[in-house]
Amino acid sequence: MSKGLPKRSEDYSLWYNELVKKADLAENSAVRGCMVIKPYGFSIWEKMQAEIDRMFKETGHSNAYFPLFIPKSYLSKEADHVEGFAKECAVVTHYRLKNDENGGVVVDPEAKLEEELIVRPTSETVIWSTYKNWVQSYRDLPLLVNQWANVVRWEMRTRLFLRTAEFLWQEGHTAHATKQEAIEESVQMMNVYAQFAEEFMAMPVVKGIKSESERFAGAVETYCIEALMQDGKALQAGTSHFLGQNFAKAFDVKFTSKEGKQEYVWGTSWGVSTRLVGALIMAHSDDQGLVLPPKLAPIQVVIVPIYKGEDQLNAIREKLGPYIDSLRKAGVSVKLDDRDTHKPGFKFAEWELKGVPLRLAMGPRDMENNTIELARRDTGEKESFDLANDLVEKVQSLMEEIQTAIYQKAFDYRAAHTTPVNTYEELKEVLETKGGFVSAHWDGTPETEEKIKEETKATIRCIPLDQDDEEGECIYSGKPSKRRVLFAKAY
Amino acid sequence: MSKGLPKRSEDYSLWYNELVKKADLAENSAVRGCMVIKPYGFSIWEKMQAEIDRMFKETGHSNAYFPLFIPKSYLSKEADHVEGFAKECAVVTHYRLKNDENGGVVVDPEAKLEEELIVRPTSETVIWSTYKNWVQSYRDLPLLVNQWANVVRWEMRTRLFLRTAEFLWQEGHTAHATKQEAIEESVQMMNVYAQFAEEFMAMPVVKGIKSESERFAGAVETYCIEALMQDGKALQAGTSHFLGQNFAKAFDVKFTSKEGKQEYVWGTSWGVSTRLVGALIMAHSDDQGLVLPPKLAPIQVVIVPIYKGEDQLNAIREKLGPYIDSLRKAGVSVKLDDRDTHKPGFKFAEWELKGVPLRLAMGPRDMENNTIELARRDTGEKESFDLANDLVEKVQSLMEEIQTAIYQKAFDYRAAHTTPVNTYEELKEVLETKGGFVSAHWDGTPETEEKIKEETKATIRCIPLDQDDEEGECIYSGKPSKRRVLFAKAY
Repeated sequence: MSKGLPKRSEDYSLWYNELVKKADLAENSAVRGCMVIKPYGFSIWEKMQAEIDRMFKETGHSNAYFPLFIPKSYLSKEADHVEGFAKECAVVTHYRLKNDENGGVVVDPEAKLEEELIVRPTSETVIWSTYKNWVQSYRDLPLLVNQWANVVRWEMRTRLFLRTAEFLWQEGHTAHATKQEAIEESVQMMNVYAQFAEEFMAMPVVKGIKSESERFAGAVETYCIEALMQDGKALQAGTSHFLGQNFAKAFDVKFTSKEGKQEYVWGTSWGVSTRLVGALIMAHSDDQGLVLPPKLAPIQVVIVPIYKGEDQLNAIREKLGPYIDSLRKAGVSVKLDDRDTHKPGFKFAEWELKGVPLRLAMGPRDMENNTIELARRDTGEKESFDLANDLVEKVQSLMEEIQTAIYQKAFDYRAAHTTPVNTYEELKEVLETKGGFVSAHWDGTPETEEKIKEETKATIRCIPLDQDDEEGECIYSGKPSKRRVLFAKAY
Repeated sequence: MSKGLPKRSEDYSLWYNELVKKADLAENSAVRGCMVIKPYGFSIWEKMQAEIDRMFKETGHSNAYFPLFIPKSYLSKEADHVEGFAKECAVVTHYRLKNDENGGVVVDPEAKLEEELIVRPTSETVIWSTYKNWVQSYRDLPLLVNQWANVVRWEMRTRLFLRTAEFLWQEGHTAHATKQEAIEESVQMMNVYAQFAEEFMAMPVVKGIKSESERFAGAVETYCIEALMQDGKALQAGTSHFLGQNFAKAFDVKFTSKEGKQEYVWGTSWGVSTRLVGALIMAHSDDQGLVLPPKLAPIQVVIVPIYKGEDQLNAIREKLGPYIDSLRKAGVSVKLDDRDTHKPGFKFAEWELKGVPLRLAMGPRDMENNTIELARRDTGEKESFDLANDLVEKVQSLMEEIQTAIYQKAFDYRAAHTTPVNTYEELKEVLETKGGFVSAHWDGTPETEEKIKEETKATIRCIPLDQDDEEGECIYSGKPSKRRVLFAKAY
């Protein structure tokens, strides 16, 4: 390990980039905007995937796989969709290379595609063109399908995990016989995302709906979960779209209803991506490195023996063996770091950097006293634990405590950084000073939204769902408003 | 469900295509050569993935993710590799579309990439260019990394699962300090694949090494597992490559050894793909549909109630409830097919088509007698089971029996279709009549191999590893040969 991280308070952005690299999470590749997700970073994503996939299956969804490539003409079939998505895409124009004289390869001009193919930026078009053949009768509905896939959006400014040209995600695409059922599905999936974010990522989120201008291209309504990072910027962590009959009409997907009528199908789509890894990092980590919630930590407990010479190490190993077995049997993921190439101080710093929730250390004095030292990553608290007591129980209860404490800390931070304001001046002041979510009345027009965005760089993150209607006046235009919305600067 | 399948004996190829479609496994998409893997087909792949991934982790590997795109120049860095792979690829040349006058979109000529990007046909080049930065010292080795990914090879003749332009696979890429260790890794992974094929897919395989001309482009040695399908054609089910220092040299990946010397790293790569789903289908299925080994069947037991009216159905449901619970608790995946839209005969045929290993049926007489009917998919055998006995135990032992029986059947088929020959005439005759593997002496030259391929369409599938050396004469050239090799027509 090289020198430490920059401080969050000094350069949050640099801190993030350095942390992602030093903790072996990801790095930039030679291909502009595409990242390499390293094994440690990928193991966090795998843990996320496993939980999310389980939740999808518990709500009746199946996985499938649709093509990477989309015929160019598909993109323009849904008018709003093409406006929102068609622009920055990877375009495949040829299907063959040939040798050139210099020993390299060149594109074979003979092998030009008749119709260009787009590397999917999202799969609504290719999936709805497939659904057309899957749906004839109401008996074929609902279709509750998800895919885990890579997608490509040619972003100009990229940031590891948060915004990359290629990223990994899941995209659910469902088809329903009724509008009501499709709306319920969209809301259900927003709730699944919120539950995952809060229970597993220990990251509180606001559930809400997007304003028209922030809505998904082709959707009738976009539901979202919005989280707050430690620098006071918001991050959209997941979206779920009620598509109405837009894609069904664009791709002519009809069904015969129970009453024998031909009707267009109602649709939804919803997704979360490797961006969640970025959110997880930014929500909890500190100047020493990652802070991972136990439920998503690839390694939950690391044990560092403190010893001089092979004999002491062997004695400690032997002593630890049964405890490690019991912990593993109880489902705790444990790593014994008995590398002889590094000193304990180095190891402590490395596992702090990598966010392991609990560190156990045992040295000769612990051996004598039948104790072990426990150190929490989140608070730094240490205690000497008497091994006459039940270590597994202790570790399990600490895992729960840490999970709860991390959530509470993020929750308190958000509470302290959610500010109701009643004037535009206040909005600007809060955004420039403490940041965070700013709750304010808005007249509901895209024009006002756009003006505020231009002048403050803040966007409407969402219209929160769990708030009461409240009559008021738009902070910008003074026109009447029925509810508050959340503004913030955002990733 | 529509009409039945074609018979294997009449048109094996048509039987396969129809089965894949009718059993809801996959279909062709609008994009040439790219398939849609439907939920039922994907659930088989998911079960395969779960077991293979577990085996990789048990042998010390971690997952990671590398970019979809490869800069064109990377492909030509390893001379043999470019010869074997550079030709039929999807080439990305532009990164933006723009609206045209007709409401459609066109490629924006302004947005041309300086260097074209290739959609990965395999990832050695991009991964070794990354490894260069991961490896400095012998302490950084071995790197034992796998990725689950999609890859694209612009195949002209495609076949669902067996050969598609885009397919899903895993590709392991490891880096080692010594030649010996890298060879051991390649052999280990071939063994992992063989174990998976035999234990889970119930598909016997021959382990062997490829002849030079069938070797992976860039490899020093290619280890493989070869299976035999029911039409007597061979199918390469997995390969594991010892890469020597070829990619390390091409991408300048060196390390400082324990002795302080700068040395090139030794590499391996290995992969299996969604092709395995095709192999699974062709290895066991029959004219009624899929036959799935219980260990990979998404539904292991289907229960069909036979009833008249809602009251009888409810009584049967109530009776079955506790049995279904016990089976699920024991880890058996059970589906109760209580749809009232279809008759039992239809349901029986549908679950036969979908290859559910065991069907249970309960009607009014079973209710009276406290029995249930069991029907095996593989043999068609039926028996009436007295529910006074332990149903869970019975089902579990049947699962094992079926798994073993399917394997044995495939094993016997292969044994009957592996023919040693001593003359070229015999080789041709066997290939034209019963097909299968033909074991024959070969002089070891690519010229002879090529001639035999031209004249018979058979290729050398492998030089089997578990055979004794045997002096003989090449069936084609009469030149001396040290061992037999396996010829076959292949997918």
